[in-house]
Amino acid sequence: MSPSRVRPGHQRGFIIPVGGAEDKTAASRILKRFVSLCGGRHAAICVVPTASALADTGARYERVFHDLGVGRVTVADIATRADAGAERVLAALEGATGIFLTGGSQLRLSTILGGTVAAQAIRRANAAGVHVAGTSAGAGFVSDHMIAFGKEGGSPGHGMVTLAPGLGLTNRIVVDQHFRQRDRLGRLLTAIGYNPFLVGIGLDEDTAAFIGPDDVLEVVGSGAITIVDGGSLEFSSMASAHEGKPVCLTNIVVHVLIDGGSYDPHRRKADPGAAARRRESA
Amino acid sequence: MSPSRVRPGHQRGFIIPVGGAEDKTAASRILKRFVSLCGGRHAAICVVPTASALADTGARYERVFHDLGVGRVTVADIATRADAGAERVLAALEGATGIFLTGGSQLRLSTILGGTVAAQAIRRANAAGVHVAGTSAGAGFVSDHMIAFGKEGGSPGHGMVTLAPGLGLTNRIVVDQHFRQRDRLGRLLTAIGYNPFLVGIGLDEDTAAFIGPDDVLEVVGSGAITIVDGGSLEFSSMASAHEGKPVCLTNIVVHVLIDGGSYDPHRRKADPGAAARRRESA
Repeated sequence: MSPSRVRPGHQRGFIIPVGGAEDKTAASRILKRFVSLCGGRHAAICVVPTASALADTGARYERVFHDLGVGRVTVADIATRADAGAERVLAALEGATGIFLTGGSQLRLSTILGGTVAAQAIRRANAAGVHVAGTSAGAGFVSDHMIAFGKEGGSPGHGMVTLAPGLGLTNRIVVDQHFRQRDRLGRLLTAIGYNPFLVGIGLDEDTAAFIGPDDVLEVVGSGAITIVDGGSLEFSSMASAHEGKPVCLTNIVVHVLIDGGSYDPHRRKADPGAAARRRESA
Repeated sequence: MSPSRVRPGHQRGFIIPVGGAEDKTAASRILKRFVSLCGGRHAAICVVPTASALADTGARYERVFHDLGVGRVTVADIATRADAGAERVLAALEGATGIFLTGGSQLRLSTILGGTVAAQAIRRANAAGVHVAGTSAGAGFVSDHMIAFGKEGGSPGHGMVTLAPGLGLTNRIVVDQHFRQRDRLGRLLTAIGYNPFLVGIGLDEDTAAFIGPDDVLEVVGSGAITIVDGGSLEFSSMASAHEGKPVCLTNIVVHVLIDGGSYDPHRRKADPGAAARRRESA
């Protein structure tokens, strides 16, 4: 799915994939930044708990956002494809300044929301300036190409990752979550090996990429973001690789960025950020 | 990859995925129609043999198009990522009224062309009105979501198909080739099961989908095209399925169309075409 068209004179909202297990207390850097972007106590945040099979996920995040001082919190309870066209669900999304996709299974998101009126409403809202955050499974779903599932490990390999179409708020990036915690560099390298036009974004837990309307990504949180850029890849043996056999990839550019760092996918440039530089020169 | 932007007042060229093993003689309905679209003897066709590991594939199609009366045929010999930025390759693409991607391996296309200047040139050419055809692997590559590889069989299943980003001339469709000959309904259903926003296009051999600037697809050739439309899918168990186990998908709409039939993805309507209707009423 291509991103919805942004109308002249408008800017799309931020897209904020979060690596999972984010701090949900008053000390939370990620959720507080999200809430602030959305208008603070004037914010209207709609929680979409579709990825989760647990009945109380929506209510849990409702409390979290209330406790962070958000004025209006709604829950779009979408557990089936029929729900995704229901009036009450579209009403919950209507007027939101921020939309939050919870964790769970990203294939629940794509199988339940794919091609529905609710998915279209979220895509159009983002193009009209509404900020969309997603954690864990919700993070994987925001992009056009989504990691559906895969294997653990640091090295790429034929068949290590299965991609599926996601929500498509943005293109070109492919997001992985719980990155360091679940040893997922191999599957992200595999995705980039399949088609090097992709830029891989590996998000550690409690770490978010705040992707602005200019597509520049800023790191917020306690972990790191691993950027895997295939733009200057010289050789990939992925086309002739066999199941379980090692593959060859040359000249992939990797950046590991921490809080305050940023990456510009158009210029393909990483910036460590003022804080990291200060620590270096101290 | 999203399709390149079509400038106001312009129309994108046709996108023509072919199911492989197309007739290459003077009797060929598919290649003759492609040549005619591209300007007949005034056509300038550029052959891109990247999918093939055989050295003579480009020369072979060069002869085929010469024999069909094409005025100018060039070959963009791209066997490595370095080739994909070479001056001689961009010169071969320059001025083409039609571009033809040969068969072979679609992962060779995505790993060698993905994110390169040559890929960008083809995408921009199509947006500016140049017709792009691809057979077999070349057919799979034209879309944003490409079937990289998968298993044979009629039933869908977890892990039956691996998707990768393709060239992205068009979005929303996913193309499979040698469809009836290699028993591929299962893997196409699996792809649609992952995200029902996709429309699956299963192309038999010697059968092509001529996709016009309005996205309407017309069938040309001796076999059939199987359209798998997930738009009204009610339930998919793909999110909870396990490797090798059966999955549940309800309310998928399937059309099997033959020469002269058409499908409009915006209205989600199939039309058997005048010839099929005439045969019925005879």
